[in-house]
Amino acid sequence: MHIEWIKGGVCAPMGFKASGVHCGIRHNPGKKDLALVVSDVPANAAAVFTRNKVYGAPITVSREHLKKTGGKARAYLCNSGNANTCNADGVDVADAMCASLANAAGISAEDVIIASTGVIGQPIPLDAIKLGIPSLVSQLRRDGADDAAYAIMTTDTFDKQAAVTFDVSGKAVTIGAMCKGSGMIAPNMATMLAFVTTDAAIEIPALQTALTAAVNDSFNCVVIDGDTSTNDTCAIMANGLAGNDTITAESDASSAFTDALTALLKKLARELAKDGEGATRLLTVNLKGAPTDKLARSIARSIVTSPLCKTAIFGADANWGRVLCAIGYTEGEFAADTIDVSIESAKGTLNVCKNGMGVSFDEAAAKAILLEDEVTLNVNMNQGAASAVFYGCDLTYDYVKINGDYRS
Amino acid sequence: MHIEWIKGGVCAPMGFKASGVHCGIRHNPGKKDLALVVSDVPANAAAVFTRNKVYGAPITVSREHLKKTGGKARAYLCNSGNANTCNADGVDVADAMCASLANAAGISAEDVIIASTGVIGQPIPLDAIKLGIPSLVSQLRRDGADDAAYAIMTTDTFDKQAAVTFDVSGKAVTIGAMCKGSGMIAPNMATMLAFVTTDAAIEIPALQTALTAAVNDSFNCVVIDGDTSTNDTCAIMANGLAGNDTITAESDASSAFTDALTALLKKLARELAKDGEGATRLLTVNLKGAPTDKLARSIARSIVTSPLCKTAIFGADANWGRVLCAIGYTEGEFAADTIDVSIESAKGTLNVCKNGMGVSFDEAAAKAILLEDEVTLNVNMNQGAASAVFYGCDLTYDYVKINGDYRS
Repeated sequence: MHIEWIKGGVCAPMGFKASGVHCGIRHNPGKKDLALVVSDVPANAAAVFTRNKVYGAPITVSREHLKKTGGKARAYLCNSGNANTCNADGVDVADAMCASLANAAGISAEDVIIASTGVIGQPIPLDAIKLGIPSLVSQLRRDGADDAAYAIMTTDTFDKQAAVTFDVSGKAVTIGAMCKGSGMIAPNMATMLAFVTTDAAIEIPALQTALTAAVNDSFNCVVIDGDTSTNDTCAIMANGLAGNDTITAESDASSAFTDALTALLKKLARELAKDGEGATRLLTVNLKGAPTDKLARSIARSIVTSPLCKTAIFGADANWGRVLCAIGYTEGEFAADTIDVSIESAKGTLNVCKNGMGVSFDEAAAKAILLEDEVTLNVNMNQGAASAVFYGCDLTYDYVKINGDYRS
Repeated sequence: MHIEWIKGGVCAPMGFKASGVHCGIRHNPGKKDLALVVSDVPANAAAVFTRNKVYGAPITVSREHLKKTGGKARAYLCNSGNANTCNADGVDVADAMCASLANAAGISAEDVIIASTGVIGQPIPLDAIKLGIPSLVSQLRRDGADDAAYAIMTTDTFDKQAAVTFDVSGKAVTIGAMCKGSGMIAPNMATMLAFVTTDAAIEIPALQTALTAAVNDSFNCVVIDGDTSTNDTCAIMANGLAGNDTITAESDASSAFTDALTALLKKLARELAKDGEGATRLLTVNLKGAPTDKLARSIARSIVTSPLCKTAIFGADANWGRVLCAIGYTEGEFAADTIDVSIESAKGTLNVCKNGMGVSFDEAAAKAILLEDEVTLNVNMNQGAASAVFYGCDLTYDYVKINGDYRS
């Protein structure tokens, strides 16, 4: 299948408008803190949410809405600066935000998928949000994707948007997305915040299946710090305006759609890891030869999560023993004496471990490879055909600085 | 039972001598890198080792020795500066070290429990060690515990030794120990390096049972960075010189022995956490009211492992939302709306979360509490009677610095 990368984000597909404003949740008036994405027409929708048992009130409300509508939605409403989590009045606040938007935009409150991100357990200024919503609605534009993408950012240092187009039954179908997330990021979750839009005509079960599969191979393969957030949400709206033959779960177009969506979310997942809090390097773990898919994922996860591997990457130190150590403490049954490891970047590839033992290598060459902005650890377990690609980043002074006093 | 804390370490019990020398594994001639502890008479022995599937050659050799002797030992031999792990000739080197000691000390090589700690996958200078062993043996002294405790240190900033004495059948029995460990520390393991000595007369099965139980409530409740080491070893030698009635697995004295050993190892575990790489604060998680022992342990572990909780403790920031988040992503079934959290130190105690929701509190008082060197997070799940106490530390700039270029 051919997919084409195009400019833009959530407004790249037909029939979506977006906006972002500063309403006052954040002190800095220059930082937008409220985002909106609206489909011109009712859309089929699907979502996945965090598996954290402590979860935000917006997730409770979004789940209820999708249940009531049977999988329909019109709008994403998202604030940054406050997670609306562990607040006694959290659900009431989220409901009031949806009602306020419904009133201003002339849609039903149940058609709103709501999300919040920021500090946990702090009162959320509902009055400021209510005041901001009418101007948020009035600023909805076809070219508003950037404003929305900025408004959902917290410690992110850049906005994360992408869009792809591909053919379904002779019609160009487009999928666009924006996401945020920089800390409190770990896989084995639904994901962080990601909002996906498409003009594809696609049935709801096929949409949910595609989303779950795509998230599993993208956002669920990112670890920044191992802390699974309370507010992870990834949602998709499909408004059908592309005019393609409706994609069903059984159709060939369903796998094409899943492939395109997976490629899109993988690109964003990689951006997430690259923008990990304090990160100076993107770390890709390319794990092959594992006995099972589950082991491939859990071993790759161990490596990208390990603080000792992450600090070694920060120091551009080819301390492959820490990679072996992180592999070795992964739960499950596998052998340790068949493992090969190489390091790779734009500067080349170097074998550092063969059959679980060190091989002599040129330290200067290793350093040169690891000093690049994007480095890969290739690990071959040589025990099977399963593989996984996980994304992470280095652990740096700035991660500690950013998180040492996040609330103030 | 009454136990009395006394001065000293591995030489506190009768019939043990120790020494430590610089043999040249480390570049710094002022840093001792080879330690020895010898019992005057044959001792019953037991040990637990890392559960990491990548493990050091010394573990292979120590396991074989204990198997061959049926649980007897005379000596601990330990080097720092090199883990002797992932080396093709690792077992040969460890065997040669034991043979060299056996020759110099006039004991059997099978009576040696050997351990190594340091960088993984680097050639180990066997010749230097062989040259050092005769002087190591000649320096064995009843007051040599400090030298041995210094010689096993890696990134540790202070030595960790303790000893207790208590009564068994009218005889004073003493247990002494030293341990090391500062990074690559996580529970769900055997432990880091700890060497325990006792003059108790105790049967081997009772000794192994006591050691396993004590480690489970002490070293296995420490997390510094979540990386389970490849070389964790905790061993005990009991030489019987106290002259007590021999402790059997079924005797009352067996539980007294286990209690004393647990208290001793808990004290050292706490020291380990306090000396975590880069740490400025000891963090104790006091978890109560969990539905099961397993959940109590895993929830407490989530909290002390979480980088976001650890950086908040570094910043003396009462960001209890991160504690709730770390509880919430723990595997298992439990409720999130009954959780109470308070922070505690020498400056007092402050409730910050009730029934999973924030309570208003004095931020200045919270800061004052968290600025102390030792802080406790009290968490009551209010869902049962199970409890756990875990030890950890804050995540600081210095952790990143220490581990950014550990090999050089």
